[in-house]
Amino acid sequence: MQFIDFYNTVLHTTFSYSDLPFPVERKRVEKGTILTPYGKVEDSLYFMNKGIVEMTIKSYMTEKIIDFFFEAELFCAFTSFLDQHPTDVQITTLMDCEIEVLKRDRLLPAYAYSLEANKFGRIATEHGYIRKSNREKDLLTKTAEERYQEMFQTHSAYITLIPVNKVAKYLGIHPESLSRIRKKINS
Amino acid sequence: MQFIDFYNTVLHTTFSYSDLPFPVERKRVEKGTILTPYGKVEDSLYFMNKGIVEMTIKSYMTEKIIDFFFEAELFCAFTSFLDQHPTDVQITTLMDCEIEVLKRDRLLPAYAYSLEANKFGRIATEHGYIRKSNREKDLLTKTAEERYQEMFQTHSAYITLIPVNKVAKYLGIHPESLSRIRKKINS
Repeated sequence: MQFIDFYNTVLHTTFSYSDLPFPVERKRVEKGTILTPYGKVEDSLYFMNKGIVEMTIKSYMTEKIIDFFFEAELFCAFTSFLDQHPTDVQITTLMDCEIEVLKRDRLLPAYAYSLEANKFGRIATEHGYIRKSNREKDLLTKTAEERYQEMFQTHSAYITLIPVNKVAKYLGIHPESLSRIRKKINS
Repeated sequence: MQFIDFYNTVLHTTFSYSDLPFPVERKRVEKGTILTPYGKVEDSLYFMNKGIVEMTIKSYMTEKIIDFFFEAELFCAFTSFLDQHPTDVQITTLMDCEIEVLKRDRLLPAYAYSLEANKFGRIATEHGYIRKSNREKDLLTKTAEERYQEMFQTHSAYITLIPVNKVAKYLGIHPESLSRIRKKINS
């Protein structure tokens, strides 16, 4: 999916790229590229055309995976994008990706005057909120098995493309526990 | 703080209530009132003038506290407010409260045409996002003691107004563990 299709779906419009109140740049990035490193002040909002990225956070001596982003999803170190403090997350491509990049310093001026830009920003942020809220509820109320089953249902086409140890890291369990869960589901 | 002051701070404006693109109704609610019960489709956005509410969620056989909201904060079952599915959270006043109520069916029409309403909605949602994101990172990377210390720093004036067992429930620890943490901090 292209960013313009996402934009039009969200706003119920039929714009082309030249109608947008901000420019969007298309990019190809190789597997293993760090799009946003730890400590950077986020200056971009990304839209995934094709591929998968992981978002990680440091926790004591280890690193945790807090999210995966797939095709047709917006992503960035959004807290840093908003407050312009150095981010405590890192975003890395898990395969060769095609992305579109929207620069913060081109979006913010559009917010000053454009109704559409604000509607887009509001609705995109609402999506992000729902995602974070669901994740919080999952962490507080669901077992790793329940969370894996949900992930499997919503992203079955992609989940096989993510290394097992990364899925386990995301769920906060050992790879062996994940193997047991997978066997149980497949049996 | 009044809602109009919050609105003007967020938008850098100097509006009065009659300039708002939606009506806001002031209410007093007694301690122990359930503002939003489990299973309700959220139809309101609340602004806290004075008081504290808790937000709870059911988890297996128990109930967990996922958030407290204090003076000058917006709150509601926001996921349900957005997607209009029955909410899995409940909001209850912990003391007599003064609140202002903004009805969803008056806000949404304003979103269609009002730049200010969209700016307000976007920025309020950004605040909500940052809050949820911080909470997620705290749950994944911080100990209960670190989370209590932060809560104590940011809301020291209020924390004494919340029953100890509720603070412990929010932190996900036993009240006895919280007593130990408090003693350690005070010594």
